[in-house]
Amino acid sequence: MPAFRHHVFVCTNSKPDNDGCCAARGSEQVLQKFRAEIASRKLREEIHVTPCGSLGTCGHGPNVVVHPDGTWYSGVSVNDVTEVIEQHLLRGKVVERLAWLDHDLLRQTIAENRAKAQAKKQG
Amino acid sequence: MPAFRHHVFVCTNSKPDNDGCCAARGSEQVLQKFRAEIASRKLREEIHVTPCGSLGTCGHGPNVVVHPDGTWYSGVSVNDVTEVIEQHLLRGKVVERLAWLDHDLLRQTIAENRAKAQAKKQG
Repeated sequence: MPAFRHHVFVCTNSKPDNDGCCAARGSEQVLQKFRAEIASRKLREEIHVTPCGSLGTCGHGPNVVVHPDGTWYSGVSVNDVTEVIEQHLLRGKVVERLAWLDHDLLRQTIAENRAKAQAKKQG
Repeated sequence: MPAFRHHVFVCTNSKPDNDGCCAARGSEQVLQKFRAEIASRKLREEIHVTPCGSLGTCGHGPNVVVHPDGTWYSGVSVNDVTEVIEQHLLRGKVVERLAWLDHDLLRQTIAENRAKAQAKKQG
């Protein structure tokens, strides 16, 4: 039994050129909305929220991962946060319209973005 | 079944005053060591590594969380990374000397650090 029933990570990665990164798509507001709702619902002892770096699904953000389920969400706006909390975190039902249901495609997308980032780094 | 067997988060949070934060304690090197070992062992398709912001156990870092287990590690040095990979990620055995086994104490520590951070913010 983990210390927290759920651990929500919100990517707040910022790229120098703002190229489709989560920060440029409003992820800080998504993070703050999660934090505020978890606090106001008195769920802090059960659900932990942490900002994180790139989840590898750059260009699809804001990206959010919910553990222990390992559910990868993309395109999460401030207006989606209440639904993720009520459907997923409280009722255990993945919000399918925002989730990567095809895990092969998810891993492939992450690998492609990693290769792109490395190529860029090498100039 | 999640897309990745394990998802490792390494706190790389940096505080303006460097007050006991993970960055000041070498967490960037811990992150790079995890990434390099996961890559060289050809485990990238199974284990994902992501940097993250404060995990709430400030002052005990470098802090690392391993999901889906929800295992909170503190005081993880570069020299501990191979053990965490071989014991926990490959054999499923928590490295107890680095882990928060008392979850009440963990939650209490996080709540105290959050209160401190908020008091500081309010000046």
